[in-house]
Amino acid sequence: MPRINAERVLSDLRTLATFGAYKTGVHRPTLSEQDVAAREWFAGRMREAGLDAEIDGVANIFGRSRSNGKRALSGSHLESQNHAGWLDGALGCVYALEAARAIAEDPATADLGVDVVVFCDEEGHFGSFFGSRSFVGLLEEREIDEAVAPATGMKMRDGLAKAGWNGRPRHLIDPSRYEAFFEAHIEQGDTLESSENKIGVVTAIVAIWQYRISVTGEQNHAGTTSMQRRRDAGREMIRLLASVDTRFQKVAGERSVWTVGRIEFEPGEKSIIPGKAEALFQLRDADPAVLDRMDKALREEVALANASGRCELSIERLSASTPAKMDEGLQAALDAAAEATAPGKHLRMPSGAGHDAQWLARKLPAAMMFVPSIGGISHHWTENTSDEDIVLGAQVFADAIVKALRR
Amino acid sequence: MPRINAERVLSDLRTLATFGAYKTGVHRPTLSEQDVAAREWFAGRMREAGLDAEIDGVANIFGRSRSNGKRALSGSHLESQNHAGWLDGALGCVYALEAARAIAEDPATADLGVDVVVFCDEEGHFGSFFGSRSFVGLLEEREIDEAVAPATGMKMRDGLAKAGWNGRPRHLIDPSRYEAFFEAHIEQGDTLESSENKIGVVTAIVAIWQYRISVTGEQNHAGTTSMQRRRDAGREMIRLLASVDTRFQKVAGERSVWTVGRIEFEPGEKSIIPGKAEALFQLRDADPAVLDRMDKALREEVALANASGRCELSIERLSASTPAKMDEGLQAALDAAAEATAPGKHLRMPSGAGHDAQWLARKLPAAMMFVPSIGGISHHWTENTSDEDIVLGAQVFADAIVKALRR
Repeated sequence: MPRINAERVLSDLRTLATFGAYKTGVHRPTLSEQDVAAREWFAGRMREAGLDAEIDGVANIFGRSRSNGKRALSGSHLESQNHAGWLDGALGCVYALEAARAIAEDPATADLGVDVVVFCDEEGHFGSFFGSRSFVGLLEEREIDEAVAPATGMKMRDGLAKAGWNGRPRHLIDPSRYEAFFEAHIEQGDTLESSENKIGVVTAIVAIWQYRISVTGEQNHAGTTSMQRRRDAGREMIRLLASVDTRFQKVAGERSVWTVGRIEFEPGEKSIIPGKAEALFQLRDADPAVLDRMDKALREEVALANASGRCELSIERLSASTPAKMDEGLQAALDAAAEATAPGKHLRMPSGAGHDAQWLARKLPAAMMFVPSIGGISHHWTENTSDEDIVLGAQVFADAIVKALRR
Repeated sequence: MPRINAERVLSDLRTLATFGAYKTGVHRPTLSEQDVAAREWFAGRMREAGLDAEIDGVANIFGRSRSNGKRALSGSHLESQNHAGWLDGALGCVYALEAARAIAEDPATADLGVDVVVFCDEEGHFGSFFGSRSFVGLLEEREIDEAVAPATGMKMRDGLAKAGWNGRPRHLIDPSRYEAFFEAHIEQGDTLESSENKIGVVTAIVAIWQYRISVTGEQNHAGTTSMQRRRDAGREMIRLLASVDTRFQKVAGERSVWTVGRIEFEPGEKSIIPGKAEALFQLRDADPAVLDRMDKALREEVALANASGRCELSIERLSASTPAKMDEGLQAALDAAAEATAPGKHLRMPSGAGHDAQWLARKLPAAMMFVPSIGGISHHWTENTSDEDIVLGAQVFADAIVKALRR
């Protein structure tokens, strides 16, 4: 088995953290000056590792191995959320590069190859998974033409032009080159930490079903309108959401999550009964049967409230992704690699967050591996993972790729 | 008993409705051009009725009767809410003026007197009850200096100066002149209409207790944070408000009302667990014991949620007025006058809205009378009352004043 170089892994990660350093994290939005510099630097590191690396017309970096043996594809993303952590995305890129290097350096595995890919904008500054969707052939030029980052007002075309990448052809996956796609990531939750495990083997990336719930009542005077007479859209919304929450505790799966991210009353004045209320409701699960059960319960609760006749309620499903199942054989390879280095300290688990791997899974058998997040913190500059866990993860990841290619 | 002039009442109201006419209602904010013109016109009508009427330094109009017999004070306000109804305020002014006229015209009652007062800004464009507070000696010049209407940016001083009233002395009540204060108003609810009554005899003007409830949890990723681990401030707020609503249905009085006028989650994003939630909560009742019971229940529910330890909750009482009791003898006079003109079609009821009478009640025995609001609509240009009900109310109002003065 290849031996990863712990110092090289940590050094690469720490160098990446200098691009857009913010407190102990980074602020490196897609196509910001810092992001462009990080991509240029990382493409250079890929070339030093013997990969033919080029940045394409959507800022993806693709680095081709010169090996003619069995090959894996591996990578993640380099940009960060605003004022966020140093490892989210960067860890998966460095693990992929280190696997490519360690596998090439070990004479016993040098016949194998790892192509490294760095996707653009997984964090969604411009839109939804532009990099990985481009790489699997599901992004039209028109989407790039129209993309503007809401936070900065930057047009994606302008960002690409400034970097010198606009108009370049875009890399497209050649599935016949690969046995598998591997992505590593920080867990972003505390399942591993709280259970004292070191490696998470992802079973599936959950589906996200997003809803808008609207209630229409009658705006009225909060003093002169009796409780019997009022048709309070806000009160109806609160009752509905409380009922849904109680019901979901029975119908949801063990790992299901649901969230009311936003709620708004109109007109939002202290002495006026709200005439309208709106809420954003989201549920996530990896099991289509559980998703259907929750969807049904949600719609039933809305129908029940509607039947009471106090207000008019409606529910609209704004989006519904499908769960992305990870390949069973690749999960077994990750289990075996983890058991060898961290015996008894690995766990199969779904990913509650979306990842580039969900798009790659449409073209290749795909696998994802998690390392622990300290305190489960994510999308914040205090996000962190211990050096020891980072190094252990890099070794398990490279080992798993070899096991998958040697099957 | 005096006979009111139905045509004169309706004609005065219809003329007032031309100042700032908006659809079938009016848009006549305090000290707008239309409001100033309406005040000048109404002061003229008061003088035509033999009252010594002057507009003062806060735009109140006070019209003194020349009678030396027993006197009542009566009036309401002339400005409207934005794009609101033609009767809210105006009705009480015209009823007061008509009572003064009818009582003076009838030789049997000509020894009695009715002073008419038109208060400024009951609708709160500049602040809280500027006119009635000024009239009872509870408004400092400094408050006028600092008053700005948020909707228009107009300084109250500028509005007064433009009208030519700035710097004028302000009328102050002389309680020794009066036996009673009488105010008429549209109900603004549908209690009278739905019970087929014509006259509401107000028992008390309710107190309004206003609260801010805050919940602090932990902002986190809506996908990777398990339901067990999350500290969802939004979910906690929904649970709390639903519990309070259920509890209030047991502890509240028959006429209590409670309203969540606004609710906000932070950061308000679909995929982020809210770290903070805030709600505005209001309760109203005329009975101090009921108010105390509701306040206690509300605080207990907050304490219970706090004890669960999921989030940190706090509650702050932003304001708490006291109920203004109407005089029992004056209520009896209104009952008797209503029974004579509309037998069996009158009702005692609290006022769920605030009125100038609540300030006058601090200086004089006070009474309020309601007429039906069609569909209970208030603070909207569709607000209305049938001509028949308007005329009937005017007669009952004048009769009640005579009954009160002849006791």
